[in-house]
Formats: sequence, C-alpha cells, structure tokens
Amino acid sequence: MAMSRPTNRRPENHKIDWHLPAISCSASAHNMSRELFVLTYGALVAQLCKDHEADEDVNKYLDQMGYNIGVRLVEDFLARSSIKKCRSYNETADIIAKIAFKMYLGITPSVICSKESGNEFSLVLDKNPLVDFVEDLPVGRSSLCYSNLLCGVIRGALEMINLPADVQFIQDRLKGGDVTEIGITFLRKTDDKKHRRNK
Amino acid sequence: MAMSRPTNRRPENHKIDWHLPAISCSASAHNMSRELFVLTYGALVAQLCKDHEADEDVNKYLDQMGYNIGVRLVEDFLARSSIKKCRSYNETADIIAKIAFKMYLGITPSVICSKESGNEFSLVLDKNPLVDFVEDLPVGRSSLCYSNLLCGVIRGALEMINLPADVQFIQDRLKGGDVTEIGITFLRKTDDKKHRRNK
Repeated sequence: MAMSRPTNRRPENHKIDWHLPAISCSASAHNMSRELFVLTYGALVAQLCKDHEADEDVNKYLDQMGYNIGVRLVEDFLARSSIKKCRSYNETADIIAKIAFKMYLGITPSVICSKESGNEFSLVLDKNPLVDFVEDLPVGRSSLCYSNLLCGVIRGALEMINLPADVQFIQDRLKGGDVTEIGITFLRKTDDKKHRRNK
Repeated sequence: MAMSRPTNRRPENHKIDWHLPAISCSASAHNMSRELFVLTYGALVAQLCKDHEADEDVNKYLDQMGYNIGVRLVEDFLARSSIKKCRSYNETADIIAKIAFKMYLGITPSVICSKESGNEFSLVLDKNPLVDFVEDLPVGRSSLCYSNLLCGVIRGALEMINLPADVQFIQDRLKGGDVTEIGITFLRKTDDKKHRRNK
C-alpha cells in the first residue's frame, strides 16, 4: 500500500538535531475524540488474536505495526511540536510524556528515571485510554500485551531520530498491575560520542 | 474479549427518544490528534488485506468491524453530545455530519438530500482524514473500499437508535472520484408509524 507523507507539514532536518523544546502544538485542526480510535484499536487487536494463537506472536505484530507507525509519526510530531533538539535522555523522556502522549493520546504520563545510569526511564500511566472499553484480557490470553502498539510507536519514533531504545511494558493494569508502566531503555550510553553528536 | 461500557458516561434512555439537539460537546478531555488513529487504521486495513484475497471480503470485514464499533460508540456519542431526539431524517443526517463527524474525526462533511423521498442522503467529504497518509490503493486492490469502517460505524450507530439504514460509499477519491461521498438510505419510510414512534 502506497502511503504518502502529508506534504504540507514536512519538517526540515528532523534527523539531525532536536534541541530546546519550543512547545507550540498546532494541533487543533487535527483533533478528534479518542473513542473511535480506542474501539478501532480493539478491533485490530481482536483481528490479530484471531490470526495468531500465541500471545507472543500478537505482541510481536503489535510492536512491529507500532514501529512502522512511529517511523512515520515522528515526522508529524517534530513538525507540529516545533521541537528541534533534546539535550539529554531525561529531556527526551519528558517530551515523549508531556508533549507526544498529550498530543496523540490526550494523556500525560509521569516520568521516572529508574537508574543512576540515566538511560532507563518509566512512563507511568494512571489511566491508559487504549483500554477504556476493555474489562479483561480475552480468555486464554494472559500473556497478551494489549497496548503493545504503543511500545512499537515509541521505539520506531526514537529510532528515526537516532535514539535506539528498548521499549516494553513493565506493568499493565489489565494484568493486575497498580498502574500501567512503559519502560524505555536508551541503548547508547550517554557518553557515547556518536550519540552526543546526533542526539 | 470483555469490553466494558465506560461507567461514568452512561446515557439514560438512549434507545427511546432523541429529540432537539442541545449541542454541548464535552469533548475536550477526550481529545487526541488524529494522525495516530489514521496510521493505526492503515495497519488494520493492511492486516485485513494480508488475511483476505478478495476486496469484497476486506470491505465486508471493515463494514462489520465498523458496525460493532458504531453499536458501542453511539452511547458515548449520545452521552457527550446531549442529543435527545431527532425530528426527521434530515436532522439526523445533519447531526451525523455536523456533530458526530466533527467529534470523532474532526471534519464536517456537507449533507445533500439526494431524493424527494426524503430518506436518502449523501455526506460529502472534501477531505477524508482516513486517507491522509495514503496515496493509492494497494496494487491489485482496485475494488477495496479503504474507509469502509466508517459506513459500518454509521450503520451500527443508527441501528442502535432504531433507524436501520444502508450506508455505503458512492464516490471515493482513492478511486478517482472528485470527492468522497457516503450514501445513507434510511430503510423505514418517514410515514411509518413505528418509526415515528421510535425516532
């Protein structure tokens, strides 16, 4: 399927530098309420569960689909948020939570830096809108990461700006967790020269 | 998969009467920008195309998924729009275009009453956000109704408020149409007493 970039909001040099968040989200013209999205996402997960017996396969497909979406979405994000560079992983994690999540899902997770190494973060969602209409995981699907698309989206978007990362659910309310928590581990060490040049 | 109704916005008596659109959309807390939805929808269509060879089958599944979504979404819509009753098919079509499309997709199609019978309407979309990132139909998929989920959503929502209707694409820009046009044919005649009682 030929998918095009929206030509009217192509950012310049988005792969090179992003620095100092000049937070001016021109989002209003693009807004919708998220219930249609949440229900459509439910239909996608149900379809994948129909197609694949193993939860691990469904999780993998959701992550891969998310990755492909993130690769495209990052361009839209950089164009609309006017963000140029990030100085640190800390700032990057903050921008994901406070600008990207707000823009695309209408929520703002809190950010926790989980290790002294400074490259591991958690996004903690008090409420996960993707499961608004979901009471339980489907029967026999106890290993399903229902919202795994989100991890893929974050991973794909970060990779496009030269910040490879592992992204996965650490806690999930659907699995009895107190909150929903997404872990992001940036794979380059912060003193990596190449990373410094590109981040 | 157990899907729940969001308990905090359950409308009362929504199946009985809806009359006089008191248009107060309390949508802000639910807002997101639609790019993530549009790309996720693209992933869903791609998945269905992978699963089913015949375009007609993909169209049917999209319509059916949409129907299931519409059946659930109508409750959210009635609760948030505060709409109680519609006096006529004309008013119903107007509400779909001016309130529901605005709320869930951020666009407002124009409405054309296409026949004197008063039960056939067209929603004309100058711009269809669902195809924002789509340049062409996939190769060999010339009969695909890419956005067919929308027809199902409208059909499902209308059926839940006792207004059965045929809903389908009449024109589609992806198929060379000048605009994108969704046709809605209400199946009960306007002088049908049962319909009058219930609409």
